[in-house]
Amino acid sequence: MSVNRILTGITTTGTPHLGNYVGAIRPAIEASRNSNSESFYFLADLHALIKCHEPELIRQSAREIAATWLALGLDTDKATFYRQSDIPEITELSWVLTCMAAKGLMNRAHAYKAAVAKNVEEGEDPDFGITMGLYSYPVLMAADILMFNANTVPVGKDQIQHVEMARDIAARFNHHFAEVFVLPEAQVDDNVAVLQGLDGRKMSKSYNNTIPLFLPEKQLKKHINKIKTNLLEPGDPKDPDDSTVFQVWQAFASEEKSVYMREQFAQGIAWGEAKKQLFELVNDEIGEARERYNTLLADPDTIEDVLQNGAKKAREISAPMLEKVRSAIGIGRL
Amino acid sequence: MSVNRILTGITTTGTPHLGNYVGAIRPAIEASRNSNSESFYFLADLHALIKCHEPELIRQSAREIAATWLALGLDTDKATFYRQSDIPEITELSWVLTCMAAKGLMNRAHAYKAAVAKNVEEGEDPDFGITMGLYSYPVLMAADILMFNANTVPVGKDQIQHVEMARDIAARFNHHFAEVFVLPEAQVDDNVAVLQGLDGRKMSKSYNNTIPLFLPEKQLKKHINKIKTNLLEPGDPKDPDDSTVFQVWQAFASEEKSVYMREQFAQGIAWGEAKKQLFELVNDEIGEARERYNTLLADPDTIEDVLQNGAKKAREISAPMLEKVRSAIGIGRL
Repeated sequence: MSVNRILTGITTTGTPHLGNYVGAIRPAIEASRNSNSESFYFLADLHALIKCHEPELIRQSAREIAATWLALGLDTDKATFYRQSDIPEITELSWVLTCMAAKGLMNRAHAYKAAVAKNVEEGEDPDFGITMGLYSYPVLMAADILMFNANTVPVGKDQIQHVEMARDIAARFNHHFAEVFVLPEAQVDDNVAVLQGLDGRKMSKSYNNTIPLFLPEKQLKKHINKIKTNLLEPGDPKDPDDSTVFQVWQAFASEEKSVYMREQFAQGIAWGEAKKQLFELVNDEIGEARERYNTLLADPDTIEDVLQNGAKKAREISAPMLEKVRSAIGIGRL
Repeated sequence: MSVNRILTGITTTGTPHLGNYVGAIRPAIEASRNSNSESFYFLADLHALIKCHEPELIRQSAREIAATWLALGLDTDKATFYRQSDIPEITELSWVLTCMAAKGLMNRAHAYKAAVAKNVEEGEDPDFGITMGLYSYPVLMAADILMFNANTVPVGKDQIQHVEMARDIAARFNHHFAEVFVLPEAQVDDNVAVLQGLDGRKMSKSYNNTIPLFLPEKQLKKHINKIKTNLLEPGDPKDPDDSTVFQVWQAFASEEKSVYMREQFAQGIAWGEAKKQLFELVNDEIGEARERYNTLLADPDTIEDVLQNGAKKAREISAPMLEKVRSAIGIGRL
């Protein structure tokens, strides 16, 4: 295969925030424009069920995430953009892979090990409160990837292991049955910004420190004003490398503008002024997309049509792929 | 629900033998004629993958099992007879239930515990050689059952636990989301014969002591002649209750004929003569079905048509059922 096939899933358990935008959505949309690659981006609603048992939250998140990617200009004629649960082949493949995956492999998964360690520390049964969903999710993730013969899976460092598990399971299948699967590789881009949140820690829903991407202007301004700063007065020189305001600035600014703001910090720009400029910078980049986002959110049928078209495209690959798998393992039509 | 819905899966990993016939197939076909019940019988090819990684064996077994049930007169207009892998809703439901099932529940499953105990005894890692398929299969079985709101699941004693797990998972789902699932009950019929095999142990593929159901006449005769007996001579009174020949006889004979053979044993019937009569008894019961079986086996298209019709009927239930599930948990169309 000469074309590079990139696959990324977005778990539908929250509202996209600036950190998601900078760290995942923006680079993904950019990558999808590369003519040497085919992009598969999907709403991972089946993964959402692992952690979230609140139906309304999942539904809302699916709407918001889909609207976000479309508003930001994802070209769905070029990229394949679909909802995981629209592709029935994925869960069947997941079961097939379940039968090929060693249980010992899952025992070594970081997320599971962390949960066990916490239980043991608290004197609980090691598996206390752990669902089979948490334990088995590397297998579903392997199915997501192998279903489309993706060779590149952009991930954060914490997810490298899961891509390696998918490789491992695929290799086991290929070796035992037939060369059906491409072995995927994790792609960790060190240049992708990990954005800091309001409190200076990594921006993350679990820290409750996010700035939602498409807040109305006024609220975006308010949120940016809440970014934690130190007590230095206007006129005092400030250290840009120790500042969340500057870190967010950098994620949105051209190189030129970054140099400019670095100078402003040295010259003692007031925090209020820096935040005002930051708001304008961010707002300029996302303002038009926000309008499209709001229009889309008010019109779920249009989003649904796009997803249905995406599912159709995806199933043109997943259906024959599953037939290959079935034929290799001996199930399906007589 | 006033109608009793019965569900049974047949794992496609072997050739049906007299033990399957007497212990499972014959009573199931009989039960399917009861007008107060709806029967769901399916080829469990996704379960077959857990233990069997030989495609040709699974394919052959699926053909043979389907042909067997049809040849024995299963009325597929009344019963719903389908292949598990033709119902994509099952694996999706299986994933949903995976997210609701406690890992601790799976730790208690007999089959898994037995495999771990064997490993520990042999000084291996507890999970050595154990696949996620073996570990997770109670969840797939729960999906099989709950998909069709089956309330009665006829099982052997060793399977009661899995039906209880399905109940447990269903109750957890109903409690958290919405009353979607009927809680199934295991039905253990103590009257169903567990047939002995050639060596006097339970007839089972794993003991290699079976008499395949639809052997050609001559081979059936040969197999029956191989049933282990003691050294008593013709004329010596024999104990029917200590004899596999008599045990098999009983499974096929009317009460009258059982009384007759008991007398023959008391009067010292020769083993050869007893086996000859046993062959005739069995052959009379299954002879016509064997002809139909051979005709069907030579015509897989006809079997396939029946299975496709069965899948269509099954999906008329499973598709709307999955929609209910999706709506309860918050996935699917916007």
